[in-house]
Amino acid sequence: MLLDSLHLDQHNQQRLERHQSRLAPWTGDVANAEIIIEKLVAFQIAIPSWALGTGGTRFGRFPGGGEPRSLEEKIDDVGLLHTLNRASGAISLHIPWDIPTDAKAIQQRAASYGLAFDAVNSNTFQDQADQNLSYKFGSLQHVDATVRRQAIDHNIDVIRHGEALGSKAITVWLSDGSCFPGQLNFRQAFQRTLESLQEIYAALPNDWKMFVEYKAFEPNFYSMTVGDWGSSYLYASKLGPKAYTLVDLGHHLPNANIEQIVAILLMEEKLGGFHFNDSKYGDDDLTAGSIKPYQLFLIFNELVDGMDARGMNHATDLGWMIDASHNVKDPLEDLLQSVEAIQIAYAQALLVDRAALEEAREENDVVKAQELLQDAFRTDVRPLVAEARLRAGGALDPLALFRQLDVRRKLISQRGAKTVATGL
Amino acid sequence: MLLDSLHLDQHNQQRLERHQSRLAPWTGDVANAEIIIEKLVAFQIAIPSWALGTGGTRFGRFPGGGEPRSLEEKIDDVGLLHTLNRASGAISLHIPWDIPTDAKAIQQRAASYGLAFDAVNSNTFQDQADQNLSYKFGSLQHVDATVRRQAIDHNIDVIRHGEALGSKAITVWLSDGSCFPGQLNFRQAFQRTLESLQEIYAALPNDWKMFVEYKAFEPNFYSMTVGDWGSSYLYASKLGPKAYTLVDLGHHLPNANIEQIVAILLMEEKLGGFHFNDSKYGDDDLTAGSIKPYQLFLIFNELVDGMDARGMNHATDLGWMIDASHNVKDPLEDLLQSVEAIQIAYAQALLVDRAALEEAREENDVVKAQELLQDAFRTDVRPLVAEARLRAGGALDPLALFRQLDVRRKLISQRGAKTVATGL
Amino acid sequence: MLLDSLHLDQHNQQRLERHQSRLAPWTGDVANAEIIIEKLVAFQIAIPSWALGTGGTRFGRFPGGGEPRSLEEKIDDVGLLHTLNRASGAISLHIPWDIPTDAKAIQQRAASYGLAFDAVNSNTFQDQADQNLSYKFGSLQHVDATVRRQAIDHNIDVIRHGEALGSKAITVWLSDGSCFPGQLNFRQAFQRTLESLQEIYAALPNDWKMFVEYKAFEPNFYSMTVGDWGSSYLYASKLGPKAYTLVDLGHHLPNANIEQIVAILLMEEKLGGFHFNDSKYGDDDLTAGSIKPYQLFLIFNELVDGMDARGMNHATDLGWMIDASHNVKDPLEDLLQSVEAIQIAYAQALLVDRAALEEAREENDVVKAQELLQDAFRTDVRPLVAEARLRAGGALDPLALFRQLDVRRKLISQRGAKTVATGL
Amino acid sequence: MLLDSLHLDQHNQQRLERHQSRLAPWTGDVANAEIIIEKLVAFQIAIPSWALGTGGTRFGRFPGGGEPRSLEEKIDDVGLLHTLNRASGAISLHIPWDIPTDAKAIQQRAASYGLAFDAVNSNTFQDQADQNLSYKFGSLQHVDATVRRQAIDHNIDVIRHGEALGSKAITVWLSDGSCFPGQLNFRQAFQRTLESLQEIYAALPNDWKMFVEYKAFEPNFYSMTVGDWGSSYLYASKLGPKAYTLVDLGHHLPNANIEQIVAILLMEEKLGGFHFNDSKYGDDDLTAGSIKPYQLFLIFNELVDGMDARGMNHATDLGWMIDASHNVKDPLEDLLQSVEAIQIAYAQALLVDRAALEEAREENDVVKAQELLQDAFRTDVRPLVAEARLRAGGALDPLALFRQLDVRRKLISQRGAKTVATGL
Repeated sequence: MLLDSLHLDQHNQQRLERHQSRLAPWTGDVANAEIIIEKLVAFQIAIPSWALGTGGTRFGRFPGGGEPRSLEEKIDDVGLLHTLNRASGAISLHIPWDIPTDAKAIQQRAASYGLAFDAVNSNTFQDQADQNLSYKFGSLQHVDATVRRQAIDHNIDVIRHGEALGSKAITVWLSDGSCFPGQLNFRQAFQRTLESLQEIYAALPNDWKMFVEYKAFEPNFYSMTVGDWGSSYLYASKLGPKAYTLVDLGHHLPNANIEQIVAILLMEEKLGGFHFNDSKYGDDDLTAGSIKPYQLFLIFNELVDGMDARGMNHATDLGWMIDASHNVKDPLEDLLQSVEAIQIAYAQALLVDRAALEEAREENDVVKAQELLQDAFRTDVRPLVAEARLRAGGALDPLALFRQLDVRRKLISQRGAKTVATGL
Repeated sequence: MLLDSLHLDQHNQQRLERHQSRLAPWTGDVANAEIIIEKLVAFQIAIPSWALGTGGTRFGRFPGGGEPRSLEEKIDDVGLLHTLNRASGAISLHIPWDIPTDAKAIQQRAASYGLAFDAVNSNTFQDQADQNLSYKFGSLQHVDATVRRQAIDHNIDVIRHGEALGSKAITVWLSDGSCFPGQLNFRQAFQRTLESLQEIYAALPNDWKMFVEYKAFEPNFYSMTVGDWGSSYLYASKLGPKAYTLVDLGHHLPNANIEQIVAILLMEEKLGGFHFNDSKYGDDDLTAGSIKPYQLFLIFNELVDGMDARGMNHATDLGWMIDASHNVKDPLEDLLQSVEAIQIAYAQALLVDRAALEEAREENDVVKAQELLQDAFRTDVRPLVAEARLRAGGALDPLALFRQLDVRRKLISQRGAKTVATGL
Repeated sequence: MLLDSLHLDQHNQQRLERHQSRLAPWTGDVANAEIIIEKLVAFQIAIPSWALGTGGTRFGRFPGGGEPRSLEEKIDDVGLLHTLNRASGAISLHIPWDIPTDAKAIQQRAASYGLAFDAVNSNTFQDQADQNLSYKFGSLQHVDATVRRQAIDHNIDVIRHGEALGSKAITVWLSDGSCFPGQLNFRQAFQRTLESLQEIYAALPNDWKMFVEYKAFEPNFYSMTVGDWGSSYLYASKLGPKAYTLVDLGHHLPNANIEQIVAILLMEEKLGGFHFNDSKYGDDDLTAGSIKPYQLFLIFNELVDGMDARGMNHATDLGWMIDASHNVKDPLEDLLQSVEAIQIAYAQALLVDRAALEEAREENDVVKAQELLQDAFRTDVRPLVAEARLRAGGALDPLALFRQLDVRRKLISQRGAKTVATGL
Repeated sequence: MLLDSLHLDQHNQQRLERHQSRLAPWTGDVANAEIIIEKLVAFQIAIPSWALGTGGTRFGRFPGGGEPRSLEEKIDDVGLLHTLNRASGAISLHIPWDIPTDAKAIQQRAASYGLAFDAVNSNTFQDQADQNLSYKFGSLQHVDATVRRQAIDHNIDVIRHGEALGSKAITVWLSDGSCFPGQLNFRQAFQRTLESLQEIYAALPNDWKMFVEYKAFEPNFYSMTVGDWGSSYLYASKLGPKAYTLVDLGHHLPNANIEQIVAILLMEEKLGGFHFNDSKYGDDDLTAGSIKPYQLFLIFNELVDGMDARGMNHATDLGWMIDASHNVKDPLEDLLQSVEAIQIAYAQALLVDRAALEEAREENDVVKAQELLQDAFRTDVRPLVAEARLRAGGALDPLALFRQLDVRRKLISQRGAKTVATGL
């Protein structure tokens, strides 16, 4: 056991006094501090199975050591994160990288850490070794019906795997598109993709959702067949009430106003879930909040506002996932940083005085509206986030404890220095 | 008369031999040359009334001379362009800059040049001297219902003016949006805008269209309430079958694939019209085809393909307009350049071997597909465009004739060197 | 008198207790809190004279009321800001909008508020009513030597005005460039601009600096003759040791890493000054820190590090100016917001544990390096900034006091509701 | 032998009549047609050894078959291209992917095809299997001097390999940079990189050049240590007269004006060479001229103008290379398309009436200047390019002949369907 309750207790004990003195002004001054803490405790962010190993670029990959060699070890890693921060209580699997051979055993292992299974992810952007037909020219959009068939069947297969584990959603991200003008008949590519999605949609269990993820570019560099929220909305509308748009923060053109997109999709009841990460140039897949933390806050500001307007449950009515790539960081440390950045943004959004904000808007008081948002953003909410962790049984400072316990060194000694996480 | 048939005849006579030798390979070799010429003759691009004077930026404006001082003179200018190129047979008015006091007289004046009245344009992005309420914080989105009322009434008023002149469409471009995070409740701004548009829509004559134009940014620099094609599509869908999206080439985020947007909107039967211009950075409003001529060709490639797939009439079933700003060029010369660039792109698109292209696509022959498009684009179609002008009664080289006749100098002597086109 | 010491005292008295309780953890816990406060007291940001009125876009302008009608009133406005925040102790004039007829009287008026005169700004991007030759096709780059002469003489004239007031620098921002491919011979435009600048440089007093400001685009939309830091660096290097690059945050291509540019220019001893603002799309000229506050912090992080590495004085060795446009806000309120955002970023940068940061870098501990920066950024430094204001004799909450005293209403009653700030 | 002179003769014979009729107007009408053809014959574009196999993205790679399995086969492939188009007369090697074990034999093989060795390329952006120290955190910038030593030695080793083959330049492209704010001390990274480059520079033979390539982003997603032309210029200036900047078209921020950069670098005598490709979003590495052919023309317009102004030899005084990635095309077909697109742009640039252009510029005749450039660009110069190929002994239509001879099928049968080009 890399981490047990004794470690946690010792760690928290050492930091408790300092934490309490930082928390004190909150519990005294702030009316809704208690509510914010409760919401933070309930709020869980799924960890994708592919984020547990070192990522790479087309130019190279520089693996660290101790990466999980199996689905079991991936669950162990997420379990470790969740034990530390009590906010990573779900795992999002990627098929075929994480096919569970014994679903029941896998479920039990996850349950032992308190982990649920979030959306399952299909993969038709790569050719697998045992695959009959190539996705070089697309999958659900392919001109050849037999390739589409293969891709449809794979997605249905993914749903079946998800059912066995207790997932309730499938995320379909397609790299389908074109690299050169002329390559694709845009209309036909759209129609073929739609028909393929309809077949997958028909295979959805009743209580499942389908998330249609969009992306502006990469790995296709001229067009993407699900390229923006407008396209994803069209697909989801045509598919039916179980289909939703999934927003990945890195999948937009430069300067896009993502928070407005979020607000519109929520208004239209078509926002399904989120992939968190951060970026400066494209789908850079950096740690959440590491480049544009104010944008992350503004997105949460719309999420809180839009979900409350519909009476949605923050914790359960949207899919919250991280989707990042850890090229130069320890993946587990990076995920701890991402989760904390998301929690901070969420807490700040909960702190916004919405009544005053609407009042300022009614009076076109732009200065006041900005003050209200920035007041929340400039507030140091880390004591609230730490308190939520403490109450949920986690560590006051997960990253410090992770380092203190020398987790990575132990993982390397257990798993080896040259392991590569399955799928990467 | 700045230009009469004698001038045209002399000009064409001098260039005829050279033109015919350039045209010869076409009429011999190319199967569909004749069809392309006919389509070019039929294809007309509307000139917006505001493009007849020198444009400006927030940093300054450097007017040339001889700008039209009245609606009558604007019609004269478009008439001149149309006489030269026989491809500018419509004018798009902007209210309140161009309110016709005597609609019948204006119609007759236009008819004398063979000009029709294209879409009318409303203006709620500026405050006029006699206006009761300010649009500083928006118009159709405004929190104050009386401001919305004023803006709705203005739009209905614009429709009435258009009816009197024979227009069949209104273009609604809204600068509504916000400059700062927090300023706007995105959902409510959307709903208020939608309700306002619904009132305007209700006032549309039966045979009219409403074009909902979108723009990514400027003059609002944080959010635009009709900010992208997805938003415009939502408005148009909710409004009804007479509402369409209008695409302005300069209204996108960096790197947007506009041709794909065009293809999707056509597929969804929601593309209504076009504002042509070119740009490198934002809504630069440069001469059509002056920066990215290949993109212009690719857009026409989708237009031709998508319209043909629906059996639409290229010349009449979409609204074709220029929307540019002439900061450092003679406005009339610039418009001649824009129209020619559009005609070239259209002719090249007509030249594409579509059967071969679809065949290449079916075989995933990306190299061949690119060859087919680039073969059309690399072909010098200027002889076809010139022949279309000649047959329609225009000039072989409109720009040369414009300069030869010293039109600008004459306009300055008639109208003065310090005139400012109404509205600018 | 809109604001006197009594108002300030009452305001501060009411807030003092609350302020002190917020400040308490700082003065107890944080080793360098006192040093940060002192540096904040010394740090002054110049207000540009053109930022005191309502800005506009090419689409319109929606003026508020009570705008300054003269240079005297502009100084009064900056004086008011400085009285409130004690951090706006300088004004940056723009010639010809602010030509002082009686330099001595103007100096005395400024001195009465404790204001110094920062860099003077020339204007060759507009034609003035009394101007002989037009800048339509550029100024210092112009093909016509007589236009260049006029522009050079204007710049020298601006220096003379600045000398009379005690300025020590001239900022040369050129809109020179081109709107269309082909318009300009890039090399010759560069050489002509350089020669023009050399003549202006020769007229600089010994203790003056010249700031060569660059901008990527607008109002020219194809090329700018001083378009990026590389170009500005070339000009400044060729000019000599008194010439420096000036960085305006809004003058870059999308996604530019401005903090790295700052670091390189400081390293090369060629960074001269700053124009603060914020933006999402282009030169949006929004309130500093309103869109990307983390970027603002990262820039200050480099400024502090780079200036310290050279033993530079933070307060005096670079030119600090705001350059923003207040389209939808009260200009004075906006400036108070901008100044505070800048102070916050500066304070956070001062808070960074630089020794630990360098240690983390030496160990390639990317996670730790991020933690160190974000720890500073996530800290609520507003008590420090307020304390600095208090010690310097300003208001604990300048914006609240501004509103409490109903300053805008009073300005409108003094100056009128329809005034337009000179120059706009 | 996949291709011999008999094949060429037959191919050309069949197309000769049609070619001659297309060429006829040129040789009659156009004064400098003969000169253009001669320049085209002399103009050679180097093929990089890594472009001969199928490229990939971080999401996957879909190899075609028949890829070269050795340096020898790579030379055969370039030899084949050169036999077809007589414009690919050089190969640019990448070490360590292409280490020649017998330099003399390799040279002879290349000579048998008429191929020279262009710039050699070092690789410190990946870890090789046998490498002691990792480049995970950079190479020439690394905080650890032993890593820098390894990278310096590798570069010197590359020079030695190049010397043995007759290369005259080394291209240093560094992926060095950082993924997160805080990770890097920008100044120290610059200084360490400079010192490392100085050691490599010191090892350059007298008649060699060093090309310092810059890139805005990827694979580092926060900062690049040689990130823009300004940085590259600084390095090259500090290194000395043998150091130059290399421009890769895909290595810029969105909307960059690359042609202006080219003009400035040529003016400063610091432009060394080019990597051709095309892109819509980032370093997409698409076929040259496939996305923005007008930009390619504008770049050549500056190259021709700037080189002529310095009396440089177009064919030999700059390094011309392709750097592209063929994800969905046959690499050899793609390279034939790229070379032709480059030749077309070059021919069009040679066609520009420079005297008239300068005259228009002197008169600020923006319309005329645009007409002059677009007249050249709209001209179909393919007959000139074909004639150049014909005279040089190549094929009138290289791509058609490549397909007619069924080259790819033959390569697959020789080399296998599952080969992977060395290095990929």
